Amino acid sequence: MSDISGFWAVVPAGGAGTRLWPLSRAARPKFLLDLTGSGRTLLQATVDRLGPLTGDRVVVVTGVAHSAAVRDQLPDVPAGRVLAEPSPRDSMAAIGLAAAVVEREDPEAVIGSFAADHVIPDVDAFHAVIREAVEVARAGHLVTIGIEPTHPATGFGYIRAGAPLDGAPTALHAVEFVEKPDSERARRYVDSGEFRWNAGMFVVRASTLLDLLARWHPDLAEGVRDIAADPSRLDDVWPGLTRIAIDHAVAEPAAEAGHVVVVPAPFAWDDVGDFASLATLLPGEDEPRVLGDPSDVTALEATGVVVAGSGRRVAVVGLDDVVVVDTPDALLVTTRARAQDVKAVVDLLKEQGRTDLT
Amino acid sequence: MSDISGFWAVVPAGGAGTRLWPLSRAARPKFLLDLTGSGRTLLQATVDRLGPLTGDRVVVVTGVAHSAAVRDQLPDVPAGRVLAEPSPRDSMAAIGLAAAVVEREDPEAVIGSFAADHVIPDVDAFHAVIREAVEVARAGHLVTIGIEPTHPATGFGYIRAGAPLDGAPTALHAVEFVEKPDSERARRYVDSGEFRWNAGMFVVRASTLLDLLARWHPDLAEGVRDIAADPSRLDDVWPGLTRIAIDHAVAEPAAEAGHVVVVPAPFAWDDVGDFASLATLLPGEDEPRVLGDPSDVTALEATGVVVAGSGRRVAVVGLDDVVVVDTPDALLVTTRARAQDVKAVVDLLKEQGRTDLT
Repeated sequence: MSDISGFWAVVPAGGAGTRLWPLSRAARPKFLLDLTGSGRTLLQATVDRLGPLTGDRVVVVTGVAHSAAVRDQLPDVPAGRVLAEPSPRDSMAAIGLAAAVVEREDPEAVIGSFAADHVIPDVDAFHAVIREAVEVARAGHLVTIGIEPTHPATGFGYIRAGAPLDGAPTALHAVEFVEKPDSERARRYVDSGEFRWNAGMFVVRASTLLDLLARWHPDLAEGVRDIAADPSRLDDVWPGLTRIAIDHAVAEPAAEAGHVVVVPAPFAWDDVGDFASLATLLPGEDEPRVLGDPSDVTALEATGVVVAGSGRRVAVVGLDDVVVVDTPDALLVTTRARAQDVKAVVDLLKEQGRTDLT
Repeated sequence: MSDISGFWAVVPAGGAGTRLWPLSRAARPKFLLDLTGSGRTLLQATVDRLGPLTGDRVVVVTGVAHSAAVRDQLPDVPAGRVLAEPSPRDSMAAIGLAAAVVEREDPEAVIGSFAADHVIPDVDAFHAVIREAVEVARAGHLVTIGIEPTHPATGFGYIRAGAPLDGAPTALHAVEFVEKPDSERARRYVDSGEFRWNAGMFVVRASTLLDLLARWHPDLAEGVRDIAADPSRLDDVWPGLTRIAIDHAVAEPAAEAGHVVVVPAPFAWDDVGDFASLATLLPGEDEPRVLGDPSDVTALEATGVVVAGSGRRVAVVGLDDVVVVDTPDALLVTTRARAQDVKAVVDLLKEQGRTDLT
């Protein structure tokens, strides 16, 4: 199949991935890393996955500290399509700026926003969903992708779906976005069959997104359109932009106003939020799963995940569901069950002024 | 108190300490390491502990591969008193050779043999026990030190004590030496109050030891006496010596013949056989105990032991009784309960030809 005419990918590349410390660091965030052993970083895999749909119509938005690394990793993306945020202004400003840049190139363009650090193994299924989403978006809807939940996750927001959208193969009206639930509510959401995970993927005409934004945050819409019209104004305008997530800025009010559609996604999706999640993405039935060179690892009666990243021998004996992450200057030992708590180590190191390690 | 006239220390410095891998290696065995964070290696601490009893009358017997390192660590021991074994011939040949060398210097000498890799924190209690042992040895007995068991250990041999020795403050006749028991027998031994741990410490006149040896292994006694008389014969005679442990060669038959006395030792003693044992020797109530620089370790809800040996940050989150040993070229993660199984890693690496790591 050919790419989709007039469809642009917007890839926000941000987020340090604190719970993947010491693999990910402020200076070497998650999206710049190969976390699946595929030979491609999460950013590269994201752009690879979109290529068949968008051709070279890809805009990446990243922090100024990472723009050189992003350009290095994506030599086929024109340098002008790597937008560098002078400072963090949350996802609405990032995606809004990209939308405004695309809108100037093609006022009819549909954009799809896909985070640079998510994993979707089934590319064909992803493409099929996005093709439907683009069709629906052309009709003026804000389309979100609703991942079929595989378990009552408490780490994701949910989208509640309603009636089918007339004439669409699978799309449904989105009733509401809900924040990360506690485990009891998550269980009810999943059991009901009405809720899907909000993976933060949006497909929408660039102009529709900006017009919706103008309704609730006119300064923000005007700001990003001003920058797109005159990039020399970036450093002047950017610092004044409202810090707000796209969900709060546009998706939630638009859902209330009946403008949001959800396309159900039957494919596996993972935001690689921590080492427990990373473990499930690595190949192999025999545990421990290894990211890095398996010949560096000697495991006896052990399960879990080992990140062999320093060239040293890593020996693990008699531990279940252990997480061992070996890097040249820092070593982490924890369990899959405690993978969420890795953030506390990073917080502690920051408190101690050890930003060389974070 | 002054040193004991005519008393010589013999320190066999051998054994790789395989269960302390990757801290100890074939090329850097346990006795050359500071395993207690005291600033002194086990070998140095052993010689320090004996100094007040022996003055400079110390003979160290070690493998030829380690003799340079031993001399480096013990600059106050005359080079001629570091005996280098051309090849491993077990403890009887090593201690026998030292006894023969001492016998030539002083035919009336009493020697005390103390392994280079044991830990005895209470030096005063140790001295009191050895002073009594030397007195008893002067009367012609083979004296062994019987450690008061603190638990039914299955990793040590035991000595069964009998009636008190006439005229001695605490010494008892030794009835028999028994091999490492299973846990049920170990429990019975400890409950009986008759058994003590065999720590491999012997105090005996050099001539008595060699005469006893001559009774059961005349070739061996003659061989070590020949070498002591003419050190140039070492490389010629040594390879032909019987490989046998001092327990089997002399202590057990001598006990059967009624020649062995045991001096009960109320002091704590540890052979630092594995990381579980090492953990108990490190200071600190708050776990994990750390060998190395505690400021290199970040622990959250973790207990066990961390050896921080590479200068890297070691972070441990949510693990109980974990053992983490960080060295520049190899990392071990296990538990205190599985500390004995570390040997299997070393065996596996050897099978794989990775002697660079063992």
